[in-house]
Amino acid sequence: MYASTGVNLDRANFVVPEKMRAWILGDPGQLIWTEKAVPVPGRAEVLVRIDAVAICATDLDVIKSGPPALVRGGLPFNKNWTPGHEYMGTVAALGPGVDEFAIGDRVTVEIHAGCGQCKRCRMGMYTSCLNYGLNYGDMNKGHRANGFTTDGGFAEYAINNINTLIKIADTMTDEEATLVVTAGTSMYGLTELGGLVAGESVAVIGPGPIGLLGAAVAKALGASPVFLTGTRDARLETGKKLGADFIVNVMRENGVETVRRLNGGKGVDYVIECSGAPGAINAAALMCNRGGKICLAAFPHELDLIDVGHIVRNNIYLYGIRGEGRSATHRAEAFMREKRFDATLIHTHTFVLEDLPEALRYARDRVEDAIKVVVKMRRE
Amino acid sequence: MYASTGVNLDRANFVVPEKMRAWILGDPGQLIWTEKAVPVPGRAEVLVRIDAVAICATDLDVIKSGPPALVRGGLPFNKNWTPGHEYMGTVAALGPGVDEFAIGDRVTVEIHAGCGQCKRCRMGMYTSCLNYGLNYGDMNKGHRANGFTTDGGFAEYAINNINTLIKIADTMTDEEATLVVTAGTSMYGLTELGGLVAGESVAVIGPGPIGLLGAAVAKALGASPVFLTGTRDARLETGKKLGADFIVNVMRENGVETVRRLNGGKGVDYVIECSGAPGAINAAALMCNRGGKICLAAFPHELDLIDVGHIVRNNIYLYGIRGEGRSATHRAEAFMREKRFDATLIHTHTFVLEDLPEALRYARDRVEDAIKVVVKMRRE
Amino acid sequence: MYASTGVNLDRANFVVPEKMRAWILGDPGQLIWTEKAVPVPGRAEVLVRIDAVAICATDLDVIKSGPPALVRGGLPFNKNWTPGHEYMGTVAALGPGVDEFAIGDRVTVEIHAGCGQCKRCRMGMYTSCLNYGLNYGDMNKGHRANGFTTDGGFAEYAINNINTLIKIADTMTDEEATLVVTAGTSMYGLTELGGLVAGESVAVIGPGPIGLLGAAVAKALGASPVFLTGTRDARLETGKKLGADFIVNVMRENGVETVRRLNGGKGVDYVIECSGAPGAINAAALMCNRGGKICLAAFPHELDLIDVGHIVRNNIYLYGIRGEGRSATHRAEAFMREKRFDATLIHTHTFVLEDLPEALRYARDRVEDAIKVVVKMRRE
Amino acid sequence: MYASTGVNLDRANFVVPEKMRAWILGDPGQLIWTEKAVPVPGRAEVLVRIDAVAICATDLDVIKSGPPALVRGGLPFNKNWTPGHEYMGTVAALGPGVDEFAIGDRVTVEIHAGCGQCKRCRMGMYTSCLNYGLNYGDMNKGHRANGFTTDGGFAEYAINNINTLIKIADTMTDEEATLVVTAGTSMYGLTELGGLVAGESVAVIGPGPIGLLGAAVAKALGASPVFLTGTRDARLETGKKLGADFIVNVMRENGVETVRRLNGGKGVDYVIECSGAPGAINAAALMCNRGGKICLAAFPHELDLIDVGHIVRNNIYLYGIRGEGRSATHRAEAFMREKRFDATLIHTHTFVLEDLPEALRYARDRVEDAIKVVVKMRRE
Repeated sequence: MYASTGVNLDRANFVVPEKMRAWILGDPGQLIWTEKAVPVPGRAEVLVRIDAVAICATDLDVIKSGPPALVRGGLPFNKNWTPGHEYMGTVAALGPGVDEFAIGDRVTVEIHAGCGQCKRCRMGMYTSCLNYGLNYGDMNKGHRANGFTTDGGFAEYAINNINTLIKIADTMTDEEATLVVTAGTSMYGLTELGGLVAGESVAVIGPGPIGLLGAAVAKALGASPVFLTGTRDARLETGKKLGADFIVNVMRENGVETVRRLNGGKGVDYVIECSGAPGAINAAALMCNRGGKICLAAFPHELDLIDVGHIVRNNIYLYGIRGEGRSATHRAEAFMREKRFDATLIHTHTFVLEDLPEALRYARDRVEDAIKVVVKMRRE
Repeated sequence: MYASTGVNLDRANFVVPEKMRAWILGDPGQLIWTEKAVPVPGRAEVLVRIDAVAICATDLDVIKSGPPALVRGGLPFNKNWTPGHEYMGTVAALGPGVDEFAIGDRVTVEIHAGCGQCKRCRMGMYTSCLNYGLNYGDMNKGHRANGFTTDGGFAEYAINNINTLIKIADTMTDEEATLVVTAGTSMYGLTELGGLVAGESVAVIGPGPIGLLGAAVAKALGASPVFLTGTRDARLETGKKLGADFIVNVMRENGVETVRRLNGGKGVDYVIECSGAPGAINAAALMCNRGGKICLAAFPHELDLIDVGHIVRNNIYLYGIRGEGRSATHRAEAFMREKRFDATLIHTHTFVLEDLPEALRYARDRVEDAIKVVVKMRRE
Repeated sequence: MYASTGVNLDRANFVVPEKMRAWILGDPGQLIWTEKAVPVPGRAEVLVRIDAVAICATDLDVIKSGPPALVRGGLPFNKNWTPGHEYMGTVAALGPGVDEFAIGDRVTVEIHAGCGQCKRCRMGMYTSCLNYGLNYGDMNKGHRANGFTTDGGFAEYAINNINTLIKIADTMTDEEATLVVTAGTSMYGLTELGGLVAGESVAVIGPGPIGLLGAAVAKALGASPVFLTGTRDARLETGKKLGADFIVNVMRENGVETVRRLNGGKGVDYVIECSGAPGAINAAALMCNRGGKICLAAFPHELDLIDVGHIVRNNIYLYGIRGEGRSATHRAEAFMREKRFDATLIHTHTFVLEDLPEALRYARDRVEDAIKVVVKMRRE
Repeated sequence: MYASTGVNLDRANFVVPEKMRAWILGDPGQLIWTEKAVPVPGRAEVLVRIDAVAICATDLDVIKSGPPALVRGGLPFNKNWTPGHEYMGTVAALGPGVDEFAIGDRVTVEIHAGCGQCKRCRMGMYTSCLNYGLNYGDMNKGHRANGFTTDGGFAEYAINNINTLIKIADTMTDEEATLVVTAGTSMYGLTELGGLVAGESVAVIGPGPIGLLGAAVAKALGASPVFLTGTRDARLETGKKLGADFIVNVMRENGVETVRRLNGGKGVDYVIECSGAPGAINAAALMCNRGGKICLAAFPHELDLIDVGHIVRNNIYLYGIRGEGRSATHRAEAFMREKRFDATLIHTHTFVLEDLPEALRYARDRVEDAIKVVVKMRRE
């Protein structure tokens, strides 16, 4: 029903309309299908015609509770704001001075463009930008987080800083391209753990999208063995196809003991905690070796009781990661382009953009074992 | 009463006796003043004649509960074992092939000598040696942790792997030299945080010995401003003399708010958590910036309720450090040799070795506001 | 004759004129004293009223040969261009949205503001910006290098990206503040060598400004011993005052042999090559240990015959550094603010801006043993 | 003729003889086929029964000129010394306390075991051991470099420190296993360049064994595009099969220009220089971007004229690598075990050990386009 590869654009004749259809957030939990003006790209920005958007658990949080940004001087989010951040599309217009991209380029996007001026941005840590949320009014510092602090992708068009764009090959479908940023988040975690994991043991806790692609990226980087623990057999089986050497259903087995036993009686070198479940961090700490490293990739909603003494005695480091920093999406895209793993295994359902509420229901309630639900533009 | 600098040894006439006086641990909590054989150094080892030993809170734990080592195949610690790990002294005999040191050299020691064969040792992470505790019997892998898994310093002599020795200058007193390993632990923490803290803001939580020297080392490395928070004014004042720019008594002020306010309304770049107090890690996380780093240098005895979501959302990293890895004691000694800070400010009391139980009481109960209590050899 | 600390500005009454006096480069080698329009700061920029400028050897090159920028699409440097890059001054006007600085702030500047969009800038490597020189016309990518690709400091006012500004304390004179960027270059070199040099041996080859402050910064970071080699006794003596433990005049002694002998018969851990002299890199390689690291901080004009086999056999790494990356100037300023070394020892002469040609002659010909020559604004 | 996978050993019945056949080096260039005692493994050592050995260009140098070790106190190499370092085999006896390996384990070896005591070893830099060559007599510091400073593999048995052993899977032939250390050298180079090369551009200069496997390892790590330049079409074609996206014969094209053109008009991110040819380093520097990194993996015999100014102006770093440090062979083995590239493409010829001189001739003179020549044990 939808073309898997992008529509070819006649660059000369590409016409951007003045108005577009878009979902906007009313009160928390309230989505409205409406029309608004197509925005105009500024310096170092392009306009992206959106072709496909994947739904992330964070979208559900944002829609339910309002945007999470830490904003100085009051919320900038008026009732005209559009969520959605895992999107891909086609470059439709260029801001002044942009020659890094051309109209018609197929691109996928990452979320964060830092301000470029704060201490963290100057260190290359743009996902930790100290001016997070400040891109409005007099305090405009230029930070952008698509679908968090600026308009996102549940619409026909969106503005993107060129720092957030990645060109994609024709061999990658629109749906697959929406998954690059998720793989990029997993890659960011592995990057911060040191990146050189070939021949090292890695355990992933929690077979959500980031965990599943975490197993895939770890294996692509040469990690061996790769363990994946979780509670749902179907997802664990998907993890096995993506690269996990061993899967452990913690409903039936003790995760820590099983991983250590399968790893020759030793702790693993790295753990990626993607579950956000109570006790998961203690399990991670017990799962790994002295000197082991743990990536914290999930956002627990509750406080967690943690055995800090064990962490200190064993020289364990923990890395809280938000987003997809250190250009990790580019590395993820490179592996996906070379078909090192098949990210589309986690894509389970597709809807048209008009049916976003139903798509969100599938994602939230895991209807029909949904993992990644993608919405696409209807273009007849 | 005690010579501040080491006794000059006539190298040619240095005579090592066959027997020595030593404290040994009987049942947990029971210390016995006895005589035992002077040990003989092996390959890559020397015999150190001990001149002074500082008491560490961990000694109190070890003496109370027995040694903490994780030992495969049963405890090696017979009733002849001697605790004590923050010692200095004089090289009294050389093992075969040792020419890195000479008899008569004044040295201070760090605790850990790794096995040299495991994955962590090969990475230079000898304090995370995977053969921790294995230096006995058939399973001898060569790991040594002075006063933890091997005999320590509450005795007249001790064996040391040459990896744990640091030559000290004549300008450093015996007492000061016992503090090098504590400063080295603080330096290890700052090393793992990145080390390049000049002009960066650092907060230290907890003015124990590691915290106080943490403030000193941070300032020596150029950190600015340096904050120190705690509950005891006298210790905070000592911290100010050692290098803290601002001190905050959290009995009177909210630590997080005060540090942020004094730092120009911003979080700090680094936090060194040295208190082990409940809630300290959450305070550390709120005290620092997005992208900030926290060193966990204390060993809490209880689980702690931690806001992991805040850590993840803000890209915060936590580094559990045990000991004094990455050759940090050498860097600490260099700063102390150049008198960049006066570590002796934390040395409050001195006893002779025979009075160790009284010295331990001073340290444990903080009698007369004791911070560091040192025991010295009586040599008339 | 010149006030050592900046003139106090009445912030409310600070009036920026429309015209200013400035030196501009005509043909290569030709400097013209003229009047031009005061520029207007844009987004993330401020206008700096210049109070003092130090002369760098690179200025002499630039003035002699024209600007060195690698520029796509032809030279942007019209006959109205002003050189000079080691300047300090007072914030005189703010671009839109700037609240990081206030009018009246005393600031010193570093040279490079990256484009913020290229791969290197996104890694935090703004001195390696891939859009170097592109801040003109349709290809404006926003890169700026003061006095290289944009107008510099031999004038009354200059525009600066806020990324290049560092606030300075009232305890630092104008003259000292001009030296921050030189110390920052040395700090950048030591940063790339690893930064944690406390207790490590460092040799500096060449007592020019970067070498002299290299010895100072190495010592401030705790390096020990620090060696400085060169051919001019007076400069070597200045190096000793700045922090060198040993100085070696290579006109009288073999540099490699002497450094190794003074270092206990061993090679040093780090070498900073600041001479650009033929054979200096081979000397550096012979001076250092296996696994040693060499910073290449000088720009030789000629090819050099290098013993690559020795470098490879000994696992030696070489780091060519241009400029003052990785926020190193901030670390240098912190050490200077805390008076860890007295950078003003290298400041030998002061002229008024009108006498720039004479100041340049002093710098170029080392008249009266000139090291750093500073020009100041005449403001009666 | 030779079993591709190792002979199964009956562990209980494994009998080590007292004498073995071995090649020993007489005068430089003179190899003698003789018999000598089978050595006995010490602490942390095993005896390896050698099954296959690959010939490295360095073997030819060593045999021609004598061992290259830097040895204090005179050459330890008596006329009984055996060269050869790229070998694999079967564990035949264990030293005291060794339980990391079992008799019968198939293993391949890397070359360097550091002393474990020097500054470099404590940093994990065991290939830069400061006690290189010191494993004889009174000065025995325990450093070992197989076939360089200790007896090597052109014999039936050899001693190995357990740090140098890597278990290999049954799916890997003996011949392939001899190539692990070569791939490990390439991996070491990429490790030092940062390791995270997925999606980054890499150029390899020189299609010798390290260069060919350098292209393979770079591609396995996700590098894209990978360029390989050289002068021999057959080898370049082999490189293409191993993972090079583009090959450039510099006899027909300008290497620098072609690589830059094929890379979209830009320099590459990384260069691995494996040719040792005059001018290769300048070519590497022109081939890469500002901020690019160059691995120096070849040992040129002559001095090379290098444009240091270009390197400094462009913030280029150069990494001289010797050997296979940072546990890189483990990462290489992991990729080979997972069949990410087919290292056996560079294995061209096989001889029996008795025919070593003929095998060396093939390797030296590239008879029949020989790349890697392997000698195997005759065991009927």
